[in-house]
Amino acid sequence: MKLWQKDKTTVASVEKFTVGKDRDMDIYLAPYDILGSLAHIRMLESVGLLSKKELEKLSAGLRAIYRQILSGDFKLEEEVEDIHSQVEFILTKELGDMGKKIHSGRSRNDQVLVDIKLFLRAAIEKLVFEVKDFFDLLMAKSEEYKDYLYPGYTHLQIAMPSSFGLWFGAYAESLTDDLLIMQAAYRVVNKNPLGSAAGYGSSFPLKRKITTSLLGFEDLNYNVVYAQMGRGKTERIVAQALSNIAATLAKMSMDACLFMNQNFGFISFPDELTTGSSIMPHKKNPDVFELIRAHCNRIQSLPNEINLITANLPSGYHRDLQLLKENLFPAFETLSDCLQMASLMYNHIRIQKNILKDEKYKYLFSVEEVNKLVLQGMAFRDAYKKVGKDIESGNFSHSGEIRHTHEGSIGNLCNDEIKRSMELTLQLFPFEKVNQKIRSLIA
Amino acid sequence: MKLWQKDKTTVASVEKFTVGKDRDMDIYLAPYDILGSLAHIRMLESVGLLSKKELEKLSAGLRAIYRQILSGDFKLEEEVEDIHSQVEFILTKELGDMGKKIHSGRSRNDQVLVDIKLFLRAAIEKLVFEVKDFFDLLMAKSEEYKDYLYPGYTHLQIAMPSSFGLWFGAYAESLTDDLLIMQAAYRVVNKNPLGSAAGYGSSFPLKRKITTSLLGFEDLNYNVVYAQMGRGKTERIVAQALSNIAATLAKMSMDACLFMNQNFGFISFPDELTTGSSIMPHKKNPDVFELIRAHCNRIQSLPNEINLITANLPSGYHRDLQLLKENLFPAFETLSDCLQMASLMYNHIRIQKNILKDEKYKYLFSVEEVNKLVLQGMAFRDAYKKVGKDIESGNFSHSGEIRHTHEGSIGNLCNDEIKRSMELTLQLFPFEKVNQKIRSLIA
Amino acid sequence: MKLWQKDKTTVASVEKFTVGKDRDMDIYLAPYDILGSLAHIRMLESVGLLSKKELEKLSAGLRAIYRQILSGDFKLEEEVEDIHSQVEFILTKELGDMGKKIHSGRSRNDQVLVDIKLFLRAAIEKLVFEVKDFFDLLMAKSEEYKDYLYPGYTHLQIAMPSSFGLWFGAYAESLTDDLLIMQAAYRVVNKNPLGSAAGYGSSFPLKRKITTSLLGFEDLNYNVVYAQMGRGKTERIVAQALSNIAATLAKMSMDACLFMNQNFGFISFPDELTTGSSIMPHKKNPDVFELIRAHCNRIQSLPNEINLITANLPSGYHRDLQLLKENLFPAFETLSDCLQMASLMYNHIRIQKNILKDEKYKYLFSVEEVNKLVLQGMAFRDAYKKVGKDIESGNFSHSGEIRHTHEGSIGNLCNDEIKRSMELTLQLFPFEKVNQKIRSLIA
Amino acid sequence: MKLWQKDKTTVASVEKFTVGKDRDMDIYLAPYDILGSLAHIRMLESVGLLSKKELEKLSAGLRAIYRQILSGDFKLEEEVEDIHSQVEFILTKELGDMGKKIHSGRSRNDQVLVDIKLFLRAAIEKLVFEVKDFFDLLMAKSEEYKDYLYPGYTHLQIAMPSSFGLWFGAYAESLTDDLLIMQAAYRVVNKNPLGSAAGYGSSFPLKRKITTSLLGFEDLNYNVVYAQMGRGKTERIVAQALSNIAATLAKMSMDACLFMNQNFGFISFPDELTTGSSIMPHKKNPDVFELIRAHCNRIQSLPNEINLITANLPSGYHRDLQLLKENLFPAFETLSDCLQMASLMYNHIRIQKNILKDEKYKYLFSVEEVNKLVLQGMAFRDAYKKVGKDIESGNFSHSGEIRHTHEGSIGNLCNDEIKRSMELTLQLFPFEKVNQKIRSLIA
Repeated sequence: MKLWQKDKTTVASVEKFTVGKDRDMDIYLAPYDILGSLAHIRMLESVGLLSKKELEKLSAGLRAIYRQILSGDFKLEEEVEDIHSQVEFILTKELGDMGKKIHSGRSRNDQVLVDIKLFLRAAIEKLVFEVKDFFDLLMAKSEEYKDYLYPGYTHLQIAMPSSFGLWFGAYAESLTDDLLIMQAAYRVVNKNPLGSAAGYGSSFPLKRKITTSLLGFEDLNYNVVYAQMGRGKTERIVAQALSNIAATLAKMSMDACLFMNQNFGFISFPDELTTGSSIMPHKKNPDVFELIRAHCNRIQSLPNEINLITANLPSGYHRDLQLLKENLFPAFETLSDCLQMASLMYNHIRIQKNILKDEKYKYLFSVEEVNKLVLQGMAFRDAYKKVGKDIESGNFSHSGEIRHTHEGSIGNLCNDEIKRSMELTLQLFPFEKVNQKIRSLIA
Repeated sequence: MKLWQKDKTTVASVEKFTVGKDRDMDIYLAPYDILGSLAHIRMLESVGLLSKKELEKLSAGLRAIYRQILSGDFKLEEEVEDIHSQVEFILTKELGDMGKKIHSGRSRNDQVLVDIKLFLRAAIEKLVFEVKDFFDLLMAKSEEYKDYLYPGYTHLQIAMPSSFGLWFGAYAESLTDDLLIMQAAYRVVNKNPLGSAAGYGSSFPLKRKITTSLLGFEDLNYNVVYAQMGRGKTERIVAQALSNIAATLAKMSMDACLFMNQNFGFISFPDELTTGSSIMPHKKNPDVFELIRAHCNRIQSLPNEINLITANLPSGYHRDLQLLKENLFPAFETLSDCLQMASLMYNHIRIQKNILKDEKYKYLFSVEEVNKLVLQGMAFRDAYKKVGKDIESGNFSHSGEIRHTHEGSIGNLCNDEIKRSMELTLQLFPFEKVNQKIRSLIA
Repeated sequence: MKLWQKDKTTVASVEKFTVGKDRDMDIYLAPYDILGSLAHIRMLESVGLLSKKELEKLSAGLRAIYRQILSGDFKLEEEVEDIHSQVEFILTKELGDMGKKIHSGRSRNDQVLVDIKLFLRAAIEKLVFEVKDFFDLLMAKSEEYKDYLYPGYTHLQIAMPSSFGLWFGAYAESLTDDLLIMQAAYRVVNKNPLGSAAGYGSSFPLKRKITTSLLGFEDLNYNVVYAQMGRGKTERIVAQALSNIAATLAKMSMDACLFMNQNFGFISFPDELTTGSSIMPHKKNPDVFELIRAHCNRIQSLPNEINLITANLPSGYHRDLQLLKENLFPAFETLSDCLQMASLMYNHIRIQKNILKDEKYKYLFSVEEVNKLVLQGMAFRDAYKKVGKDIESGNFSHSGEIRHTHEGSIGNLCNDEIKRSMELTLQLFPFEKVNQKIRSLIA
Repeated sequence: MKLWQKDKTTVASVEKFTVGKDRDMDIYLAPYDILGSLAHIRMLESVGLLSKKELEKLSAGLRAIYRQILSGDFKLEEEVEDIHSQVEFILTKELGDMGKKIHSGRSRNDQVLVDIKLFLRAAIEKLVFEVKDFFDLLMAKSEEYKDYLYPGYTHLQIAMPSSFGLWFGAYAESLTDDLLIMQAAYRVVNKNPLGSAAGYGSSFPLKRKITTSLLGFEDLNYNVVYAQMGRGKTERIVAQALSNIAATLAKMSMDACLFMNQNFGFISFPDELTTGSSIMPHKKNPDVFELIRAHCNRIQSLPNEINLITANLPSGYHRDLQLLKENLFPAFETLSDCLQMASLMYNHIRIQKNILKDEKYKYLFSVEEVNKLVLQGMAFRDAYKKVGKDIESGNFSHSGEIRHTHEGSIGNLCNDEIKRSMELTLQLFPFEKVNQKIRSLIA
């Protein structure tokens, strides 16, 4: 069944090729397609294109399908092209020609646009809370291990003392910036494209502000040509925002792999969280971190993939855009898995005590000694040279003491400030307002 | 002269290779390096590490260099390694050992971090106003040409009527979303990394909130390990934000090239804005748009370049980060050039009247006819089939009238709403507050 | 069942996360894993690590599994970790402890390395023949339509006459260069990594040249550290080679979409090969070409994805490499689908006659007129200026004749030379020799 | 001076923007532009479009300019648009109108196409010899350090013994595969596009096989539309080939940074080859390796940048292609610098002896012990379990002996085979034949 079929049938191989994986992708969109339709028909009724009675019946029908989707029972029938057709098909079977009216004043172009935006909005919300949970864990670990020092490196050469308080806290703070960008992406997502039809508007007397309000959008994509242009662009912007979180996780995983390496030996994990080798009986490998790193690096390649598919396409819809769903939609699940696995690991991390006692780390303290001399009145450059010469001649010694007191240093992590910063960013997401609207719509 | 040189000299080829283009890049950073130092020494004085008199003399010295930089007279001397060294060198020549004290409690790592952030902050500000100017032009052109219809395409096939009012407006609205993302990038930039030293903090009793306030930053990068991690990450986030603006410009340029093509013939430009061919005497080529498109596509490759350089590097500074400046810094100028050239072109655009009179465009009106039947009471699917059959049999006719009245459509562009949306986004940038702080600092 | 399991069991979520989609990917590798094992055990027997009898029984067991795989009946059992374990498990069930011996002197690392190389070798071979079929079609169409002229564009502006003979021929010739690169990729693939164990060799007295010969490899990856380094690198090189073919297909599809556009109207296709719109009854959209373009653009993003996953990983195996299979392996099928769909389309293409009769194309002939004057003795620059002035003043006229006779021009397509070039490249692939070896191995 | 200028002058800002950095890029192309012209006019004479006398004078003039270019005295005058115009301008100043004839039967499009191909051909030749020099160094170091063992890692966990013989040899062998791909890229480059004019051929009776032979090309790009399509495609293919060499260098540099890290401490370098810190007097940083890594990672981003600029452009020349030169041409110099710096470093490398004596590496020998039991008759899985239990219970001991004898292992590096493989690949490049042709042309 195709909405657009006239007399001639499409060649089967063309149909198979053009549909591709799109029916699988439509499963992601299914509940949001219903929400879009619920808002659309309420608007149609308000402008007189549906009767009150039609609205009631259609709404009831749509809500029934919505519940079916949530329960996991819904699926696209073999011969049905897409989610929009499946829904119309069910309604028509139940309600006769009235069922076809849900498509009035819409094109599949703006229907899928709004579906994608509603899906992304919900997926971002879920992700943000998962990020927040992971953030909380990192903050807790930062406190727990604030006195566990390890050698800080620059150029991968030992540099100055660091601490696991700093290490955990750094990645927590990184997530606060990542969510700042995600929040802007959310705002781009949270604008209503519905009513743009095929990308050039419609002669129906639509009231786009009504659907905007019903669906809890912050605003409209006003210009209909721009609303259509949002396809591809929205995906890219969301992929960029995902890539930042992914970059934070990937970097932390690289650190973890390095710190688990026997030459470092700073951290370890229970055997049950590591994997072995088919030929080396001593192996306890950090596969979880390697796969987090790899998944997150792949997510970082997503914006570029989207760019390559959309580059140099003139304005107006192109079928190419269909493929953007296939790697973006599952990326949310992947990132969620990565966050959960990272949480599992860090919940069971064992950190080595007294790492810095090892003689090989003594030069970490060279700056401390330089600074001591400076605070005693010696010019910095002279102190630097004196300590440098002590090192060369083998006369360097140090007290092993560290007194870093300024903001964000070993002795003053400022974790409360970082938490406050996270809170402020979270408050910028209007989740509650949005969810209230959605609850009203399906009630 | 090297700040870190002890006795042995580095091999010349190593020096040449490691310095690379960095001295050129430092010219971008020069004024911001002074600003950072001005704030830093004022803080040093407040914690007793400089006397009031030293502060005065050093401040005067720094402000003199700042003026020299703004006047264009400043340059790095041959044998000087970088901007930080050059400044210290000048001060020491004038003020003796006191000059060396500006480096107390800092590493070049956090000095360049703060320089980059101050540079990016200023560069974003300049760009935002340029984007706003271009936005205003697009809005004006949208009004001017709101009655100039052209065929809207989907799948590059004629679809439904569009207008140049919509076309210009769409790209204007696109810029409002682009600036939403840029604003988030600005917030990431606008946090103070100074005081993180080599990325692990310092034993000096620094007061990082003082420099934060003096430099007009919104907040700190608290955790010193995270402050250092901001290198690479900040660049990537800014590059992503640039890439969105670039994508908008590139797409519009693709449209322009297509619309100038003789098969479309929708728009044209004065000969003086086009270029010719060495063998074809009839040519008037849209080179400006092709080069905007190419420059902007290249800018879209920047985040990926940054990703490739930084992927899988563990935490802590690596010299690799130096190269990130080389393509990112000039990208601001390139984007600025592209905006100016696009403005020049659209200021002189000539748009064809009555494009839709051409018989080949008649099917653009098929949806209008379908909708008419629907508004007369026919079910949508039936109307769709009837008009489809009229087309097949050659009996399709239409009135040529378009009455699109809903928000964002041909007859109701909602340009005022789009302008308001732009205004609201612009107000989120705290430019005035920042600039006031900077003016105080150099006064 | 895990080959490496000792006493403790891995946490279920860790197992699920680390296995990921790898069991699906192993289905691609299954037949090649058997081939690798058949060669390996024959080598083991030759160095005395297996008895002749053991070799016979194990070989028979492996061949039975091979036939099962080819028949489509083979699958990984729920609790089995990977293809290597499944094969060992089946053999052990049948033959007892003897079954375990196929793993002697191997690690899963070099087992999967050789599996991937054998898979890629076969996948490339299949693809090369598909490319050749498409090449033949393009050559045939080039001959068929050599007299069908169309306007050639530069800068998307009408430039000089072209022909569909040239158009089809150009993409055919493009494929000859694409296969040159693919042939080099094949040579990189066609070297034997088996015997490198976990990437550092083995104390078993392996004879790697024996397995090299048995598996039909051209040569060895000698150095065992390099053999392991081939993972990731081989995938990248193959992905680059795929990306070239993809780029050729994508560009041709862009042309096709443009030429189908009503403003051009150069080509069309039967309705059954196009798709419609849910709201516009007149639509006949080129979805097939749009999706070829998008799929091929995505394939062009593959090398970069691989780069991002592998960038900055030090030498030695990392679990990250597992993910490289997930997009690369299916890319062969996608490219195959694209070639088949493009063939279907071009087999049914309808090309407009007499396109150049349209008045709007007359300036295409300006160079012809310039050249005529030059051949009559006028200096080129003067002729260029004269014709340019004729155009400006409206006095330009032309004969409509084209006489291009040089190699590769409208009148002299050189398709025979292009076919010869393709033949020469094809002969460089040692497919027959390789297949003979494989047939011997499974006989 | 513009070849294509008629009456109206282009606006200055348009001229500045469209020329961009192209005049700088033309300096790379200058000598090759002369070579192309020398071949072209000899062909023109052979078909009667130039007299013998004109050929002589023009050839003499071109050779004089060629010598000037080689001596470094040549430059583009301020007002001259490009290299082609500059050459024509010089010739016309000397020889009058005859000078203009060198452009007959050519467009700047095919002139720049052939220039780029000649430049790339020469640049690849130079690079190949530099790679060969570095390969020789790695082979020599592999022999020198073949008895220096170090711990091999998988998953960054200690795995099995490796050696610096293997380490150096692995990267040498990697270069042999890299040159296989480069050789295919060279073949794509080494085909003659000259005679394709603006991409649609010419009515002049050109003999393209003559210029093909004179310029030493292996073959023609026959189809003129394909010849033009080679622009962008050739650059991408060469960039892919560069990226492989870059990937090899980058990975080796990552290893070097890790091995220099104090936790590993496997290798070190003289102070003069390392750099210091402005605050940490003990630092000896591996900046050279970090910058090789970063430069090489950036080179790996080049093919993607080219893809983004060219994606979805229909066939025919577009001005966008101009920008492809700007990052590709300098990449050859960068890669050359990286090879030289890597050579400098490895020439002075100091490798730690007896690394494996350290107790922490003892489990490296676990596989040796397993294999010993297997060779004594125990089943592999049982031996694996026994050794695993010994490790768990603290009873593991080992002899410290390694006897790896198979091809490519610690005890049998197969460096001669690797050298032979390199030789065979080098012989595939027809450098001598090409250079002979070029020498004839300029003689």
